Amino acid sequence: MSLDPARLAPMANAVRALSMDAVQAANSGHPGMPMGMADVATVLWSKYLKFDPSAPDWADRDRFVLSAGHGSMLIYALLNLSGYARPTMEDIANFRQLGSRCAGHPENFLLDGIECTTGPLGQGLAMAVGMAMAERHLNAIYGDALVDHRTWVIAGDGCLMEGINHEAIGLAGHLKLGRLNVLWDSNNITIDGDTDLSTCEDIQARYRANGWHVVECSGHDFGEIDTALAAARDDTDRPTLVVCNTVIGKGAPNKQGTSGVHGSPLGADEIAAAREQLGWEYEPFVVPDAILADWKATGEHGKAARSQWQDRAKQYDTTGEFADRMAGKLPDGDLLAGAMEEWLSGDQKVATRKASEMVLGKLTASVPAMIGGSADLTGSNNTKTPSTGPFTADNYDGRYVYYGIREFGMAAAMNGMALHGGVIPYGGTFLIFSDYCRNAIRLAALQQTRSIFVLTHDSIGLGEDGPTHQPVEQVMSLRLIPNLNVFRPADLIETAECWLLALEHAGTPSALCLTRQNLPQVRKADLGQNMSAKGAYRLKAAQGPRKVVIVASGSEVEVALATAARLEEQGVGADVVSMPCMDLLEAQDANYKADLFPAGLLKVSIEAGSTLGWERYVGNDGITIGLDRFGASAPAEQLFEKFGFTADAIVPKIMNKLNG
Amino acid sequence: MSLDPARLAPMANAVRALSMDAVQAANSGHPGMPMGMADVATVLWSKYLKFDPSAPDWADRDRFVLSAGHGSMLIYALLNLSGYARPTMEDIANFRQLGSRCAGHPENFLLDGIECTTGPLGQGLAMAVGMAMAERHLNAIYGDALVDHRTWVIAGDGCLMEGINHEAIGLAGHLKLGRLNVLWDSNNITIDGDTDLSTCEDIQARYRANGWHVVECSGHDFGEIDTALAAARDDTDRPTLVVCNTVIGKGAPNKQGTSGVHGSPLGADEIAAAREQLGWEYEPFVVPDAILADWKATGEHGKAARSQWQDRAKQYDTTGEFADRMAGKLPDGDLLAGAMEEWLSGDQKVATRKASEMVLGKLTASVPAMIGGSADLTGSNNTKTPSTGPFTADNYDGRYVYYGIREFGMAAAMNGMALHGGVIPYGGTFLIFSDYCRNAIRLAALQQTRSIFVLTHDSIGLGEDGPTHQPVEQVMSLRLIPNLNVFRPADLIETAECWLLALEHAGTPSALCLTRQNLPQVRKADLGQNMSAKGAYRLKAAQGPRKVVIVASGSEVEVALATAARLEEQGVGADVVSMPCMDLLEAQDANYKADLFPAGLLKVSIEAGSTLGWERYVGNDGITIGLDRFGASAPAEQLFEKFGFTADAIVPKIMNKLNG
Repeated sequence: MSLDPARLAPMANAVRALSMDAVQAANSGHPGMPMGMADVATVLWSKYLKFDPSAPDWADRDRFVLSAGHGSMLIYALLNLSGYARPTMEDIANFRQLGSRCAGHPENFLLDGIECTTGPLGQGLAMAVGMAMAERHLNAIYGDALVDHRTWVIAGDGCLMEGINHEAIGLAGHLKLGRLNVLWDSNNITIDGDTDLSTCEDIQARYRANGWHVVECSGHDFGEIDTALAAARDDTDRPTLVVCNTVIGKGAPNKQGTSGVHGSPLGADEIAAAREQLGWEYEPFVVPDAILADWKATGEHGKAARSQWQDRAKQYDTTGEFADRMAGKLPDGDLLAGAMEEWLSGDQKVATRKASEMVLGKLTASVPAMIGGSADLTGSNNTKTPSTGPFTADNYDGRYVYYGIREFGMAAAMNGMALHGGVIPYGGTFLIFSDYCRNAIRLAALQQTRSIFVLTHDSIGLGEDGPTHQPVEQVMSLRLIPNLNVFRPADLIETAECWLLALEHAGTPSALCLTRQNLPQVRKADLGQNMSAKGAYRLKAAQGPRKVVIVASGSEVEVALATAARLEEQGVGADVVSMPCMDLLEAQDANYKADLFPAGLLKVSIEAGSTLGWERYVGNDGITIGLDRFGASAPAEQLFEKFGFTADAIVPKIMNKLNG
Repeated sequence: MSLDPARLAPMANAVRALSMDAVQAANSGHPGMPMGMADVATVLWSKYLKFDPSAPDWADRDRFVLSAGHGSMLIYALLNLSGYARPTMEDIANFRQLGSRCAGHPENFLLDGIECTTGPLGQGLAMAVGMAMAERHLNAIYGDALVDHRTWVIAGDGCLMEGINHEAIGLAGHLKLGRLNVLWDSNNITIDGDTDLSTCEDIQARYRANGWHVVECSGHDFGEIDTALAAARDDTDRPTLVVCNTVIGKGAPNKQGTSGVHGSPLGADEIAAAREQLGWEYEPFVVPDAILADWKATGEHGKAARSQWQDRAKQYDTTGEFADRMAGKLPDGDLLAGAMEEWLSGDQKVATRKASEMVLGKLTASVPAMIGGSADLTGSNNTKTPSTGPFTADNYDGRYVYYGIREFGMAAAMNGMALHGGVIPYGGTFLIFSDYCRNAIRLAALQQTRSIFVLTHDSIGLGEDGPTHQPVEQVMSLRLIPNLNVFRPADLIETAECWLLALEHAGTPSALCLTRQNLPQVRKADLGQNMSAKGAYRLKAAQGPRKVVIVASGSEVEVALATAARLEEQGVGADVVSMPCMDLLEAQDANYKADLFPAGLLKVSIEAGSTLGWERYVGNDGITIGLDRFGASAPAEQLFEKFGFTADAIVPKIMNKLNG
């Protein structure tokens, strides 16, 4: 498509008008960014972005990520104008209202064409890195015929100031993701005022120091923008930062270039002045047909490309393998290749991180879509398997990512990979460092991605590294995140079950909390089903007259069994309930829960972490054995004794309560 | 002190020997870093670091931060050898054992001379930035005579790869913290192997891009180290990165330079070989007197400097004002200058973020030690007051920090400021972005610092920004962190009470969760004491026959009162308990709690967030009104209605339960 400024300018002004009018109607929102980046976005969509509005899930489309998600009206305007079925103009007029698909920030689950949910700054760019990684990996496997697309990002000053930016661009530069291009809306304004209030960084030099190609343009000169985007597109050896020098709120004559246009409506007077300035004489939410036609034309080259791609797909994906992978299907059959039966009949005393490695050995052999990695704790997280060779700039077909000491960047990249599709990412760090990537775990949950977080060293059981490394509140606090399955398996069998559940829940991310220390195998009988799928189950039934139910997770199931055994010796019948996943238990019906935790019995929870929350199951007349303080540095066994996680310490508490 | 390599080498080898022997004895730990950085540390302590082992709390000492905290044996060896009372050689021999002050990672609460708790990578350096900020601020107020010291950091490759590094060095460079010097242990090794597995960054260029001075030396050539440290010391206009090129595990002939020495004991054979290589013929934990004497001499220049400083202190701190500030004392008298009485007699309908601003206006006028700031949300967090002018490179006497879009860097810097002493830092961001700085909040709690986190926009009540910005699980998950007071006040009065509590708890950080939306004043009667100090209290007593207790926090107290009023109309007596701080309630005795939540009554909790945890107070036969899903984008009032936070929705649930 030729770039005629006479046609581009009104197209860009349509974006500006929709943005300022929608924010005004909502009396809430961010007009500055969409107005400032309207010119750049218009060139990007007109000539560079490969997309087909009639097929927003086309596998080989370019990915577009609005990392500066507060400028959501930009993407809503672009999707509407270029002909996506949604958002409708009514959605836009209802921007930020209850039920509108045009939410305050772009939500991937509300609109096609929104590749990821953004707003928490820096994460859009970091997810884009994951998308670009997935693209190169699938390209290495399926070739240019099926996979050859770019990832385009619009990021603001905030995205570039966040720490995750450092992690993301370091990873992207190291992996030479040449098809990743970041358009930086450089307007020198943040919420508090000029950027020089808080930074004097030479951002271009920093990107170059990370192996990036950097080009610069005026963000309001169509020719310069075109040249810069061409340079970005043509350098496929390095990711490119396109510095777009813009005026925030461009078009609002009295307020542009100030922090006043960042996050507030322009007001009726300024909007009238902007209409005059822009020569935009149309009513709110009205775009003239001629301009609309030019916008609709932007999808034509993508439509044509898709048609050709479809022909190639018929030729190269005759088995449907690629389509199945992009659809997220798991291979048919027993993913563990018969290992479960063998393990059930055995008696493996292993750490659950080691159990996870054993399970992963089977799964990564069965499921080619799985791509593993670790934030520099490979040997501790036990995440590498014989099937997963290194994923490097020279070997994009590898399936193991050395993410470096970049927990947040890793988690966000995993989300991006999952959102891209065709791969199922899992990645490891210590559970304590879920704190470092917590908001990315949350965004996985909100976005409904199948990201699998392998979080080892899950309690004081890690021992000598001490309180900075010992999770206390992390397991319970992760359980609080909606739509996240937090697994804490008790042994090899539960670990295998939990891994299968993590794979099967395609719309829910998982956190696997695993021990450093060895655990005995507590499950030996074949119960004919995945017991962890219920979230909790009766592992041991009372023998004597039932008076107590002990519920525990992970490494404390062993303690629960020992405690129950001692109670039985004293004639007190005690059930033991293992709870590998509180979230899945919550999804069971009331009868199932009442059967596990019958009224009238003393209930006792044991977990080496926060007690708050366990009252849901044990009531406020039960006993919660846990740890509501920081841990200490010592060998694990001594810590379990010091903090009372032994039958010796627990049995008297139960007997006192029963006799009290 | 002259630097004689013939004396320095055995001094450094003493550090190496203690490190490898202690790790071996513990059969756990990290010998590689202490052995690699022993030469650099020996020069630093011999000539540059200003310290007096007999007065570890001397206000004008240099601060030394071991950001690479896993190399904890380095600091333990340095403290012992240079003559601190602790750790003793017995502590070192018991490295990582229960009760030893030589924990796996350095803990500021276990040993003098440990300025902060490190281990979570990157945060030591970021805390050091805060220390250097506090130093310049106090220098600007009290002059060179009382405050003129440096902050020295040893950081590893991991610290520099973490995202927080980007935030920390951007802030430090912008603020031109010339007395901050970071010694980078550049050994090209991480846990997973060579650094080129995961990065190819030109780190020096990145630091320069952030306004840092960069010098380089061999970390094993005493002369080069001396020259580099002198250059760092002499440039007081910019922070300096000293690139120390080292061999990890230097001295272990067969293992040095590999990831094998990073985090594992060397083994008996390699230790024997190292002894031979180093010419170290002494038993484990034995250091010859001559070497010890040289080490003891390293504190002499600091001792002398302190003696001179004490003379100056007599002259310049005659009122003891500086000493009081360094001791963390609050000014005497009513910090709110009579405002509380006025507010109690009024009827202010304000958002609690605005209430916080009103309170801060008074407090910052009364308490000069308070230094505020925000991560680029000043106008939203309402953290700036007339008393707090900008803290900038040109005006270190300012009391308001424009932290930039750097939540994690801000929180860590605040911790460093609090640890330095003389200032009481508070800083704002949105509550949702507590996720971004969560581990720094945790480290505040572990380190017992008076860091005050102002977290606004605390629920779906923020409205249109939608689920990415609406906290759901954050309030409850912060409550899980030990030794953190999480406040969620209901109105202006409780906000004032909570702010006073935050200041009074010198050993406990606070998180103030505040609304964006206006709230009515629910407290009007003067109850003669700070009711929030109890954590929860009966705000309204039942009028009719008491059947229900409704407990709520923050913005939902209004809903609780409305619900109670409707119940009373129907003849059902209902208490309303306001719970501004669950943590402080937990510290009350059983009688107090039983009085608030009597057995036999229906208990109902209302909070616009996770329900898990509330069963502690309402039992598992009570009613928990909350939000266990992500929010939505819409005006706040509509969201409260949609999600059932209205008397209309709640009263029937209570009546059904009472009649059920």
